[in-house]
Amino acid sequence: MYSFRNDYSEGAHPRILEALVNTNLIQTEGYGEDIYTLEAIENIKNHIGSDDVQIHLISGGTQVNLIAISAFLRPHEAAITASSGHIAVHETGAIEATGHKVITVDVSDGKLNPSHIKSVLDVHTDEHMVKPKLVYISNSTEVGTIYSKKELYELSTFCRDHNLILFMDGARLGSALCSYENDLKLNDIKALVDAFYIGGTKNGALLGEVLVIVNSDLKEDFRYHIKQKGALLAKGRLLGIQFKELFKDDLFFSLAKHANSMADILRGGIEKAGFTFLTCSPSNQLFPVLPDCLIKELEKKYAFNTWAKIDDNTTAIRLVTSWATEEKAVLSFIDDLKNLMSR
Amino acid sequence: MYSFRNDYSEGAHPRILEALVNTNLIQTEGYGEDIYTLEAIENIKNHIGSDDVQIHLISGGTQVNLIAISAFLRPHEAAITASSGHIAVHETGAIEATGHKVITVDVSDGKLNPSHIKSVLDVHTDEHMVKPKLVYISNSTEVGTIYSKKELYELSTFCRDHNLILFMDGARLGSALCSYENDLKLNDIKALVDAFYIGGTKNGALLGEVLVIVNSDLKEDFRYHIKQKGALLAKGRLLGIQFKELFKDDLFFSLAKHANSMADILRGGIEKAGFTFLTCSPSNQLFPVLPDCLIKELEKKYAFNTWAKIDDNTTAIRLVTSWATEEKAVLSFIDDLKNLMSR
Amino acid sequence: MYSFRNDYSEGAHPRILEALVNTNLIQTEGYGEDIYTLEAIENIKNHIGSDDVQIHLISGGTQVNLIAISAFLRPHEAAITASSGHIAVHETGAIEATGHKVITVDVSDGKLNPSHIKSVLDVHTDEHMVKPKLVYISNSTEVGTIYSKKELYELSTFCRDHNLILFMDGARLGSALCSYENDLKLNDIKALVDAFYIGGTKNGALLGEVLVIVNSDLKEDFRYHIKQKGALLAKGRLLGIQFKELFKDDLFFSLAKHANSMADILRGGIEKAGFTFLTCSPSNQLFPVLPDCLIKELEKKYAFNTWAKIDDNTTAIRLVTSWATEEKAVLSFIDDLKNLMSR
Amino acid sequence: MYSFRNDYSEGAHPRILEALVNTNLIQTEGYGEDIYTLEAIENIKNHIGSDDVQIHLISGGTQVNLIAISAFLRPHEAAITASSGHIAVHETGAIEATGHKVITVDVSDGKLNPSHIKSVLDVHTDEHMVKPKLVYISNSTEVGTIYSKKELYELSTFCRDHNLILFMDGARLGSALCSYENDLKLNDIKALVDAFYIGGTKNGALLGEVLVIVNSDLKEDFRYHIKQKGALLAKGRLLGIQFKELFKDDLFFSLAKHANSMADILRGGIEKAGFTFLTCSPSNQLFPVLPDCLIKELEKKYAFNTWAKIDDNTTAIRLVTSWATEEKAVLSFIDDLKNLMSR
Repeated sequence: MYSFRNDYSEGAHPRILEALVNTNLIQTEGYGEDIYTLEAIENIKNHIGSDDVQIHLISGGTQVNLIAISAFLRPHEAAITASSGHIAVHETGAIEATGHKVITVDVSDGKLNPSHIKSVLDVHTDEHMVKPKLVYISNSTEVGTIYSKKELYELSTFCRDHNLILFMDGARLGSALCSYENDLKLNDIKALVDAFYIGGTKNGALLGEVLVIVNSDLKEDFRYHIKQKGALLAKGRLLGIQFKELFKDDLFFSLAKHANSMADILRGGIEKAGFTFLTCSPSNQLFPVLPDCLIKELEKKYAFNTWAKIDDNTTAIRLVTSWATEEKAVLSFIDDLKNLMSR
Repeated sequence: MYSFRNDYSEGAHPRILEALVNTNLIQTEGYGEDIYTLEAIENIKNHIGSDDVQIHLISGGTQVNLIAISAFLRPHEAAITASSGHIAVHETGAIEATGHKVITVDVSDGKLNPSHIKSVLDVHTDEHMVKPKLVYISNSTEVGTIYSKKELYELSTFCRDHNLILFMDGARLGSALCSYENDLKLNDIKALVDAFYIGGTKNGALLGEVLVIVNSDLKEDFRYHIKQKGALLAKGRLLGIQFKELFKDDLFFSLAKHANSMADILRGGIEKAGFTFLTCSPSNQLFPVLPDCLIKELEKKYAFNTWAKIDDNTTAIRLVTSWATEEKAVLSFIDDLKNLMSR
Repeated sequence: MYSFRNDYSEGAHPRILEALVNTNLIQTEGYGEDIYTLEAIENIKNHIGSDDVQIHLISGGTQVNLIAISAFLRPHEAAITASSGHIAVHETGAIEATGHKVITVDVSDGKLNPSHIKSVLDVHTDEHMVKPKLVYISNSTEVGTIYSKKELYELSTFCRDHNLILFMDGARLGSALCSYENDLKLNDIKALVDAFYIGGTKNGALLGEVLVIVNSDLKEDFRYHIKQKGALLAKGRLLGIQFKELFKDDLFFSLAKHANSMADILRGGIEKAGFTFLTCSPSNQLFPVLPDCLIKELEKKYAFNTWAKIDDNTTAIRLVTSWATEEKAVLSFIDDLKNLMSR
Repeated sequence: MYSFRNDYSEGAHPRILEALVNTNLIQTEGYGEDIYTLEAIENIKNHIGSDDVQIHLISGGTQVNLIAISAFLRPHEAAITASSGHIAVHETGAIEATGHKVITVDVSDGKLNPSHIKSVLDVHTDEHMVKPKLVYISNSTEVGTIYSKKELYELSTFCRDHNLILFMDGARLGSALCSYENDLKLNDIKALVDAFYIGGTKNGALLGEVLVIVNSDLKEDFRYHIKQKGALLAKGRLLGIQFKELFKDDLFFSLAKHANSMADILRGGIEKAGFTFLTCSPSNQLFPVLPDCLIKELEKKYAFNTWAKIDDNTTAIRLVTSWATEEKAVLSFIDDLKNLMSR
């Protein structure tokens, strides 16, 4: 049984484990003040091409989202997200638990644009309603789509014009940036958003996300918030060593490229077999729409999640590739798909 | 420069890293539903000698405290702690951030007894004040002391008689249980408290604590709370593999014993040199009271924290040993102490 | 300029002021433990026809909602409401500020039925999402509609079958119960919901709502929550005296009947003039759809709110009548409507 | 039985009720946008002698405290208070329920000075602890003492030098300002604190406190916070009419003077009878220390609270006078005291 269920089914890239082993008995400071964390931050700043950002290593995506959003907002302010946004659906009300409403906009491709935001602002007009203040986007989105530079620029401009904070959830930013459709660089993102994070958990780390705070107004006292939410690891080195390794050269991007190229093969094979997709995903999550009988057969050899019932006989499934996905598994999946169809 | 600053200066015990390497490319379920986590839980239950507990692996101590306490209490209920308790001082208001007051009792040895709790209950008499509902204790405490079976029994009886939840922070439970003064076993603790945790971060793991919920009333829906607070790791295997290893035999206890035996040597040497201690600690944290001039000399070769100014010329420092502390470092410290005194 | 803007434009019914004046210098206990509050509670229990409920007098509707919902739910649990529900829209995120997500269901008539609730339960399946636990309904709703006994019975049965708390916001319960379409009595509501409130602010009181807790599991320590949220008035007598007066005979219902009969005249006149309504409201809020030019003329003599743009030339407005609405104002409005049309 | 239990045993000053009656059927805007509220605010600004403040009318003291403090602080910031402070003891954890720690300083006279604040700052040094940010003081304090201009100036200077917000709870500010010992004016307070409130509930109003925000940084969006916490009364006129009346001339101060003069008589009589006081209170709360046998006798004719056991035979009681206290009751109390002693 090979799993395409997600991009966190395996451990970490071997170079990361090696780095952990090699540094294991060296004594360091705790709480992210160790030399590895400092070096990781340097490496990441180099990749972003800017020294003027504040960087924090945090263990998981929900944790970054809840720490950042609750630190950035005042009590009456709310976040706007696509209805498919991770904070709206799959974080057990983590943002609300910090006191803030999450306002959703229904979209089918997972992406927000200025007109979406405007529609929210138009109906939130006085103190009887929350004040929309932060725009949360994911790149790649929860349905695999990505933002173009033009789209992000337009969103950024709108947010700045309306005094809104633009925050990008980058749990799968590696895959987005390495997509064949992408025209954004880390430095563009840095120029266009107020804060974003670069996901490690889904791109080869054991755990860890890199929060990058660009807007200076949002930097003050940020470590207090990390600690208060239980996210300041005593052995911060665990995050530091991993990200030092991922960003000391292009390892982070190589891993994302591998995930994407495995997805590209899958996508091509599925298209060739005549199937369509629920969303136009150029990244490492694919949502092919398949006959239920076919899905039943595939489930005998492959693990994956069903995503949405399309009609009585077809369902969209989710296939996720990762840094660890083996090409032979991908090819075998396509072969099986073809064979099953020809029966 | 050798550090006695804390018990999380190094990485993990080599057997743990080995286990991570050996399992690295095996695909597993996410979010703590992997086979390693399940096995770890089995191993831990065996050590506790009970199947009737609910076990969750969570990445850090502050996180366990805030998740458990906010899950256990209703909005108007409060926690009682010694003034030195970790939740009172060193968690950046993490408990208050979930909405609950932390009521402190001044004690010098870090331990609570029934009369302390009674004094709190006596002044919280109606709905104009919070309702004290949970008693938080640490074992070993933040000043190195430990609870005897008799003390814990009395506290437990009092709590049950007064409908209070008894919760034990076991960030350093390994060291407490392996102390020469200890007469408690895991199974005793299980019988006497409503919930407790067994600390991994400070006893050889990269990160991770084992929350054990004993009281059935507190078990319902607990995973929702872990997720909501951002603590449900996608790669839950990282915790599972570590704790499987620590508890598949007696590794967890061997590591604590080593830490304690290093502390015993230190304690003996310091006593022999004629110094006293701020607290009677039989565990891996020692608080010797030393002349400031001596401290200044020791700081040239050893890293440690000063803890409390005693008078104009003396200060209590904190020395912490761990699973990784080298005997030669300990012996060298004592030698240096003696030599400095004879000058 | 006569205002149909809301049902809280005037002070209180004269009998209430009289009662305040007559009792003014009598000394009482504070915090709702005065004799007037006790008598008010007795009177209300008589009207409900049950002694087995817990009653609290609280100053406003948003306050009741936030106190009750946060007291009733555990941190990971959420409320379900119609998208038009007051807690979803017009309370500045009050419920989220206590940590709970508000899940909305899109409906046009402001009412929830079991299939709405089921659709929410169907997609909230595990600990990665909040746990829907409380169903919030308003009667009358924010768009003037009311629940029949059959509808409430079905909702109640569904909630009990699915272990959900059913909570009724009765800010305008008086008008609902006195509507010509109504077949519910206070005692029916008591039998079908877990908690509800009877609104005073919008039915002749200076301020104040009567929270009735039916489900015994929800009663414990409730006054702590009132105090914690700043809602335990030192001079609780202010609420007690008012509700004693409103419920010592049928004053509360007489006032609601007057409001409704004024609405009935308005409704009839508007229908006769050939206009339709956005919703079928049998209560004291009417939403006629009028030509914009006509609205412009009416605004010269009457104050009211526009509610929703219907098309380029027509808009739904909101007209609210109350215990204090004068018949001559209502008749004058209809006259003016007719005259404006005949021009 | 005459009650000296508190200053909220009666209703409102008759002029206030009269104003409510006289305006009763005039239609106004809701939510504090009525003309009476606007006039009240003008009157209060005239008394403060400044137009450069933001004023909000809010129904109770706990509500003002929790709204203001949660609006002023970021999540990791904490309030400092005397251990006797109302927010520390008698608000059921209202501040913690908004997420903020309340740090207490033990004092016997209820007052804070710069050295108290400094001692807190000295131990809160990094992100492992909350960041003390707001200093909460009461004037008069919970034990009847008041701040002199010099004391308030020193505190204010210290707070400004250390970037701390100074907030004054003025639930009994009227009595403080009208004390024979007082040298502060409203305008001085305005110049020295960042925000304060003027209590109406305990000085002749049915309910209501006047929050005055001086520091411009704290004014933005404040009405959102009032609404979110359930404190924006639909019939805001109820507060507006009362405070318009209290501040259209010197009624507010006349009432406080009466309360104080009644306290002065009581204090004098008790001193003359040879008893001492727990605190040196020059305001309307007195804490005489009396023999228990005497207290038992007094309780037959007067209602009051015991405050603190002093020794086996004596107890401090609390006597509170108000705008409504009758001179004959006060004289009778003193007579009875004398007579009881001579027995």
